[in-house]
Amino acid sequence: MRLLAIDLGGTKLALATFTADGNVTSKDTVLLSGRQGKQVGKLIVDLVADQIALADRQADEIAAIAVSIPGISNVKNSTVWAPNISGWEAYPLLQEIETVSGQIPVTIESDRSCYILGEVWQGAAKGCKDAIYLSVGTGIGAGIMAGGQILRGANDIAGAIGWLALRPPYHEKYKNHGHFEYYTSGEGIVRLTRELLHTKPAYKGGLRMKDPGELTTQKVFAAFMAEDEIAIQVFKHCIEYWGMAVANLVSLFNPEKIIIGGGVFGPASAFIPAIYEEAKRWGQPISAGLFVLEGSALGADAGIYGAGYAALKTFREFNAKNNVQ
Amino acid sequence: MRLLAIDLGGTKLALATFTADGNVTSKDTVLLSGRQGKQVGKLIVDLVADQIALADRQADEIAAIAVSIPGISNVKNSTVWAPNISGWEAYPLLQEIETVSGQIPVTIESDRSCYILGEVWQGAAKGCKDAIYLSVGTGIGAGIMAGGQILRGANDIAGAIGWLALRPPYHEKYKNHGHFEYYTSGEGIVRLTRELLHTKPAYKGGLRMKDPGELTTQKVFAAFMAEDEIAIQVFKHCIEYWGMAVANLVSLFNPEKIIIGGGVFGPASAFIPAIYEEAKRWGQPISAGLFVLEGSALGADAGIYGAGYAALKTFREFNAKNNVQ
Repeated sequence: MRLLAIDLGGTKLALATFTADGNVTSKDTVLLSGRQGKQVGKLIVDLVADQIALADRQADEIAAIAVSIPGISNVKNSTVWAPNISGWEAYPLLQEIETVSGQIPVTIESDRSCYILGEVWQGAAKGCKDAIYLSVGTGIGAGIMAGGQILRGANDIAGAIGWLALRPPYHEKYKNHGHFEYYTSGEGIVRLTRELLHTKPAYKGGLRMKDPGELTTQKVFAAFMAEDEIAIQVFKHCIEYWGMAVANLVSLFNPEKIIIGGGVFGPASAFIPAIYEEAKRWGQPISAGLFVLEGSALGADAGIYGAGYAALKTFREFNAKNNVQ
Repeated sequence: MRLLAIDLGGTKLALATFTADGNVTSKDTVLLSGRQGKQVGKLIVDLVADQIALADRQADEIAAIAVSIPGISNVKNSTVWAPNISGWEAYPLLQEIETVSGQIPVTIESDRSCYILGEVWQGAAKGCKDAIYLSVGTGIGAGIMAGGQILRGANDIAGAIGWLALRPPYHEKYKNHGHFEYYTSGEGIVRLTRELLHTKPAYKGGLRMKDPGELTTQKVFAAFMAEDEIAIQVFKHCIEYWGMAVANLVSLFNPEKIIIGGGVFGPASAFIPAIYEEAKRWGQPISAGLFVLEGSALGADAGIYGAGYAALKTFREFNAKNNVQ
């Protein structure tokens, strides 16, 4: 038997098959090539049908299918929402896949849930029952495992940690991102740099560009490496906020591990020890003394491993329900 | 059958029996009268033995027993920690009760877990699967139900919301309480008032006492009712922090309901609408638009109802494990 995992991103998807032990038996990447809406759904359905046929020809079978989507999987009404795929607002992806999957159980998970599932299955949080993946990229989200279960919330939107309130008062500018994400996501680092530049008219360094639109997260990281005074201040603030957010997760969830990943970690991974120190100052002292903060072990593969584990869990639940031992 | 519930506080305990439907069939209060350590354990064991004997004489039986304790119930090693009962640091309460409970299943829960269990069973969060009780009294804690399960964390200390970091930078003075609790618990309101008095030397109102040691939470509430300028500022800050904390719970947990209770709510209940407004500004917009913020429906009885529900859940789990339908 094999587990079929698909990790859908905004521009491509990864597809892999796994053994129940977490070994990859095949892996492929398919570009979305501008596909939108229903075309993305058709691509996934066709790939699933191909994989089922392939397993059949090899006298093997697919035991379960899981798809990681860059958005929210609404379990109650079996639809998905993915802001980067136009037309996927309440998209019936599960129903579409079920037109070709027959008796094979299928599950759809949010990418952030898959990140922590992947790390728990085969990565930095292997074997943990209480662990959190803090994903810091263009946006910020958290995949939360509590007591061995993915935390979903009443409407499948738990883990929206980008909206963490970390310094009063409220400003309208936080409205579309949340306060934490506004300053510390990839885009947030650029926003924070712009605000600091505004308060330092005397600064003439490399981050003051003729066209402020040319400022990028990468340029702020590069300036930090060159000991630019503004970049140093930017990351001092970011480390403080990242540390406070980690501390808040520690005090509320008492996890064994918190994994930091996403595009920003990456280059910000060097800050993890400083974030850990900041988090330990703020957090509930017993929990803060016991938890471990680490970078992702799976990097860009966390999502596909997570989909593999989601497929395995679905297979086990399906069997338990049908009394197969 | 009846369910035996005990709610232990720092100076007294409440004892009640419930039907499986949540009706109280008997209720009593016993003062601790200065008992400490093992004497408190013996009191509980004797009361349990009495209740078992009483049920027996009435040709009835106790189906399960639950105790709410003012501290942490460490499930892994079956001990409890309760800071207000001297000698209860890793106290084997479960083992002691099991010397008299025979085949009856026994469970011990933290008070904050019992508060949310009580409200979910018979109070303001009846029937919810995702709901949180924010308890603001001398200290601050949260009882969290996620997906129908109590959130425990890796070491049973989840819900330590008093340690929420809500405004950088960190100060050493937060060390023993956590930042959120430092300013907004019952004692925190007094601390915040003292800090504001210090910054307003011109203020000559009633909160400036000859002996600053005489300042109490009650006096700050009374001053607010009399439109004292410092008290107005104190609660402006508290509402902001309470709102941010509620927002952070909303964004992370996506709950149906958050219940605010504890000694401070009480008098602060009039602020709940303002806290709700503040929380809705900061929180993830979909979750913030869907959740409900309410005062406790059970008040001081939340703990005993929660212990009753914990007993019922234990009874059901015990039956499921033993294949009784």
